Amino acid sequence: MSVEATGKTRRGRGARAAARQSRDITMLPALKRRLPLTEPMTQEQIERIDAASMDILENVGVQFRDDIALADWKRAGAKVDGERVYLDRHLVRELIATIPESFTYHARNPANNLPFGQDHSVFVPMTGAPFLRDLDDVRRNPTLDDLANFHKLSHMLPAMQSSAHHIVEPYDHPISQRHLRITYSSMKYSDKMFMGMTTSPKNAEDVLDMCAILFGEEFLETHPVVTGNCNGNSPLVWDETMLGALRAFSRRNQPVLCSPFVLGGANTPASSAATVAQLNAEALSALAYTQLIRKGAPAIYGHYLSTVSMKSGAPMAGTPEISLMNFMIGQMARFYRVPWRTSNTLGGAKTFDAQAGYESAMTLNAVLMAGANYIWHSAGWNEAGMHCSTAKFIVDAEMCAMGYRMAEGIKWDDFEEALAAIPDIGPGGHYLGHPHTLEHFQKAFFMPEMFDNNSIEQWQAEGGVEINERALIRARAMLNEYEEPKLDAGINEALLDYIARREREIPAADALNQDF
Amino acid sequence: MSVEATGKTRRGRGARAAARQSRDITMLPALKRRLPLTEPMTQEQIERIDAASMDILENVGVQFRDDIALADWKRAGAKVDGERVYLDRHLVRELIATIPESFTYHARNPANNLPFGQDHSVFVPMTGAPFLRDLDDVRRNPTLDDLANFHKLSHMLPAMQSSAHHIVEPYDHPISQRHLRITYSSMKYSDKMFMGMTTSPKNAEDVLDMCAILFGEEFLETHPVVTGNCNGNSPLVWDETMLGALRAFSRRNQPVLCSPFVLGGANTPASSAATVAQLNAEALSALAYTQLIRKGAPAIYGHYLSTVSMKSGAPMAGTPEISLMNFMIGQMARFYRVPWRTSNTLGGAKTFDAQAGYESAMTLNAVLMAGANYIWHSAGWNEAGMHCSTAKFIVDAEMCAMGYRMAEGIKWDDFEEALAAIPDIGPGGHYLGHPHTLEHFQKAFFMPEMFDNNSIEQWQAEGGVEINERALIRARAMLNEYEEPKLDAGINEALLDYIARREREIPAADALNQDF
Repeated sequence: MSVEATGKTRRGRGARAAARQSRDITMLPALKRRLPLTEPMTQEQIERIDAASMDILENVGVQFRDDIALADWKRAGAKVDGERVYLDRHLVRELIATIPESFTYHARNPANNLPFGQDHSVFVPMTGAPFLRDLDDVRRNPTLDDLANFHKLSHMLPAMQSSAHHIVEPYDHPISQRHLRITYSSMKYSDKMFMGMTTSPKNAEDVLDMCAILFGEEFLETHPVVTGNCNGNSPLVWDETMLGALRAFSRRNQPVLCSPFVLGGANTPASSAATVAQLNAEALSALAYTQLIRKGAPAIYGHYLSTVSMKSGAPMAGTPEISLMNFMIGQMARFYRVPWRTSNTLGGAKTFDAQAGYESAMTLNAVLMAGANYIWHSAGWNEAGMHCSTAKFIVDAEMCAMGYRMAEGIKWDDFEEALAAIPDIGPGGHYLGHPHTLEHFQKAFFMPEMFDNNSIEQWQAEGGVEINERALIRARAMLNEYEEPKLDAGINEALLDYIARREREIPAADALNQDF
Repeated sequence: MSVEATGKTRRGRGARAAARQSRDITMLPALKRRLPLTEPMTQEQIERIDAASMDILENVGVQFRDDIALADWKRAGAKVDGERVYLDRHLVRELIATIPESFTYHARNPANNLPFGQDHSVFVPMTGAPFLRDLDDVRRNPTLDDLANFHKLSHMLPAMQSSAHHIVEPYDHPISQRHLRITYSSMKYSDKMFMGMTTSPKNAEDVLDMCAILFGEEFLETHPVVTGNCNGNSPLVWDETMLGALRAFSRRNQPVLCSPFVLGGANTPASSAATVAQLNAEALSALAYTQLIRKGAPAIYGHYLSTVSMKSGAPMAGTPEISLMNFMIGQMARFYRVPWRTSNTLGGAKTFDAQAGYESAMTLNAVLMAGANYIWHSAGWNEAGMHCSTAKFIVDAEMCAMGYRMAEGIKWDDFEEALAAIPDIGPGGHYLGHPHTLEHFQKAFFMPEMFDNNSIEQWQAEGGVEINERALIRARAMLNEYEEPKLDAGINEALLDYIARREREIPAADALNQDF
């Protein structure tokens, strides 16, 4: 094309390229935390929680609503009475001892591999939203295209270190086949690590088969590449669907997240310490079970944690007890030397208003200071998880970048050099033109792009735009600049063939029940 | 009045009384922190900052732009060259050693007295806003009536433990006489502790004379009742106005806050550690000076701390380095055994949008985990301090109540009792009807009133109101319910006489220059 013929196109592309150049979309490397953690429990108090949890496992027991699991536990020597399994503390300790304390999570782009566990933390976007607030702030059911957009944004936002799986639930595809398209979308639009659907044991197998296509069967057997989330029903119940999915992941040596689903005060006692004791017992029971399936398979201590309003039964977020329980759970996971997952930027606001900001930031601080390894729901969560907000997705991701910087701790590397500027300037001067400032300002102090710190006159001159709209403008610009990290053509074809075959095999009848 | 004649009035009053009964306006007692603090520096790093600060004091020196201070320093044996004072580290250490590590702050209602320093924290509303967003969210210059409203709200909000002084700047009164009306408003509309204007040495004397009327001259001499804030001009300058006000407070044994005003990167080096070293030197120089004025007089390590956007020069808030520097400064203040003040809920948002929420919560977490004793700007701050938001005032105060609860740490008192509920309920049950839940839920989990956690359907049915408007509704209701904690009639008359006399003496000519 000649310059003349493509003038308009080039201007568009030129502008896009310029924007790309100014926007760094390189993923942040693994966060290695250097800031000391908040650890409110003494060793004696940790052991008190541990003892209480072991008492629960031995004397109250846990319901495994699944015949295979009950048989597995019997074989392992546990006392089984109906669906109730009573777990001896020695058996539990022996089983969880073989869970790896750390490992490397592999992405299809090896540059995005991440060390996992111990003093590392990984930020993951929210998952599971049945609604979204879209690029025009309209609240509606999501589609596969919306999901693709969130995978694209996850790919481009430096602090997001995973593309997760069903960030939003794609309602335009039959529910029975949805896990295939969700997995493909995670794999295709981002080359960061991702997660696996566990909506049924068979669906989990499909995810793992697709992972085998993407990474190779042998690689899959020996390298963690995906996460299966196994939610518990608190108090003290694990169901057949979750246990089947757990087995699918553990059998193939892929990490399983054992995640009690806690609504503090509703399905736990009205006490933070007792809630942690119950949650801990629940997590330990499933963690132990993973090692019955495959000794040494990676497993992750998880939870979804909220407290419940005793006025309405609604889950709350950003409240002080959630912070305290996160601190405590972090201590428990480290006591057992198991990596742990928590939930970030939670909240119950219906729009992206100040409530959403407060709740999210309170949660972000708590999970960072608690030392969580796997920080789920780190972008987009709003309305108690009922919708993923596109605007909030962008801002949360920048908040995570700030949290990342805080958790890295104090930089001392140029301390002497910076001090030397003080006599240069002396009393009453300013540092703006000093060579040290010019050389270091870009790295010295984080400059959030989504926070407007201009004067009100400047802000008004620029249209008086609040953060919700600013973030939507940013999201639209990013999607416009997106470049797909192409899958290998052969792998792509194999994945599409697999999906086509499975979609022929799986009845789509459920589609009739969709409320899309 | 008969029942019939007053039916309507009684309904109004009855409703108001009922609302009052349901709303607890009792001030939270002194916060005694039990959660471990975030202390990122090792002892060696603390000493490194200390050494760097002492080097600055000895070799760069500090400008005291005030003849009396220069003469005082000469007498004390410091090397003085022009306005530059070079402070030997031994002299500095000797002087600051006599600053009390803790004391009791006295309010006119002794029930509101507060222990101060060490592991106690006190929340104070924002101060100094030239604009407000009012009860209708209109941004305008404030009046004395607006200031009274903020003093009334401070009186009623449990987590606010001071009525401060000029929360907003009352533009409807001549600037030269304003300090008198501000002080009277603090004293009249709330019986919590308050602060003293330091806009000139003579204004400071007026404040202290009014304190002597309120508390008695002898009580004032022996009990801290007010705070004088002395802002520094970083780098390394103290001016005549501030030093004169400092002397007025220290002479009468009232606490002075020595507060470098830091715009990190603009008036400090582009390095967190070097910024703290400079700020620390500045604070120490003024803290030491208070002890030249009166040995043993209370003094407080202070600062206003932001980092500066290198794009626009605007101050930023909620950024990671501000959190890190707060943690460091807390360690330095404890190293010197001096109580310290920091700033809360800062931010640059122009409205009460999500940006304001994020910024405020990030700051709240940082100052709590830093272990600040005197937490200024804890309610209302927005737009880099240019306006006090009425809506944000209400929500920030609730956030402080949540921060308070978090900082209290884990409650273990009913642990065994709560654990006993677990076998009662067993797997698969729920705790909502359990006697332990019914007895403890109100204290177990904080239920924020300003956060809406209802379903979107409920929220929409109630009008779909965002937090800004919800908080304004609350503010209007509270002001409607306000009951004045009456001053003693004789004291009130004496205060009004003092103001009348001083207003005759002080020319109001400056009023012509007001932009009200």
